[in-house]
Amino acid sequence: MYKVITIGRQFGSGGREFGRRLAEELGYEYYDKEIISEIAKKTSLSEEYVSEVLDNRPHPLYPITIGHTISISDSFQLKQVQSVYEAHCELLKSLASKSNCIIVGRCADYILKDFKPFKIFIYADLEARVDRCIKRQSEDEKYSRKQLRKMIVKIDKNRARYYDFFANQTWGDKDNYDLCINTTNQVIKDIVPVMAKIFKD
Amino acid sequence: MYKVITIGRQFGSGGREFGRRLAEELGYEYYDKEIISEIAKKTSLSEEYVSEVLDNRPHPLYPITIGHTISISDSFQLKQVQSVYEAHCELLKSLASKSNCIIVGRCADYILKDFKPFKIFIYADLEARVDRCIKRQSEDEKYSRKQLRKMIVKIDKNRARYYDFFANQTWGDKDNYDLCINTTNQVIKDIVPVMAKIFKD
Repeated sequence: MYKVITIGRQFGSGGREFGRRLAEELGYEYYDKEIISEIAKKTSLSEEYVSEVLDNRPHPLYPITIGHTISISDSFQLKQVQSVYEAHCELLKSLASKSNCIIVGRCADYILKDFKPFKIFIYADLEARVDRCIKRQSEDEKYSRKQLRKMIVKIDKNRARYYDFFANQTWGDKDNYDLCINTTNQVIKDIVPVMAKIFKD
Repeated sequence: MYKVITIGRQFGSGGREFGRRLAEELGYEYYDKEIISEIAKKTSLSEEYVSEVLDNRPHPLYPITIGHTISISDSFQLKQVQSVYEAHCELLKSLASKSNCIIVGRCADYILKDFKPFKIFIYADLEARVDRCIKRQSEDEKYSRKQLRKMIVKIDKNRARYYDFFANQTWGDKDNYDLCINTTNQVIKDIVPVMAKIFKD
């Protein structure tokens, strides 16, 4: 069986950088945004829609409540969300069966539980995450700290909702991970070579 | 300033072994049970009592509630608990000012916050902790899994109460630590040399 590392991460905590560098260090395949393109192809949905479902904005995951009549559009949208999730499961399992790999975000730890992945969660204080977002803003993006704080909280709320709904456990709860790394006071490029040694034979 | 590493740990998770091995690996001083003897000397309380307050059994930390009359014995006991805590704070600060060190448990991360310690939390699944307790039982101790489960939950509840009361934050909440290590599927003597590299220049 190939080695699989999954990385859950708070937005702005550097989880993506951590994953990418760890994959380079270990010579593992690295999957992140590629997953979105692949799911879009499989479902014939647009990449933007898939990305919205998996990452970016609130979506109607919870339209079904007792005594609540589901409108056709709600029901249709729920089916689409489910079809994205199913394509996602199928894709992750096929990637994990192919080679040693690192997969970032989106319930991968739960979806791949039969592959016994090593599960990492990357997090940081809110202000440290705002700092990181400011550093990586492009010239066109000039969000204020206040705007970024709001955006971070909103994105993480959606990640948590998606995870809690499909994995039926709490996103970011340390009990679900093997290692939780707080990047607030860490330089990611310095800690990756250290952490990589866990996976070297 | 000397390097200070604090280790919070769930009972039976191997936090003490982790701390001891890490101290050996780094050549740092290691403080754990020595703290209890030292506080007992300073407060003229017995080691058993100090250990009970810091570690082992429920104690009346919360006798003060609005509209509740405190009995003399409650009030006396609360003062003793507070005097143990004060002696504890003084001792930890003096140890952290003396040399690089690793201090296990008992609010050290909070008490030493001005020393900017690297804060580790060690945890594991309940059944893995029961396994570990069974392995380290002496010939005289033959607790059943059920008894050990109950004991673990009770001890951790007390640790949490002590921590939450004095540190005013949640024991085991990953946000309060730099690194949280789940030892369920780990061999501690294998991961310590890896983690030690974080602290080597």
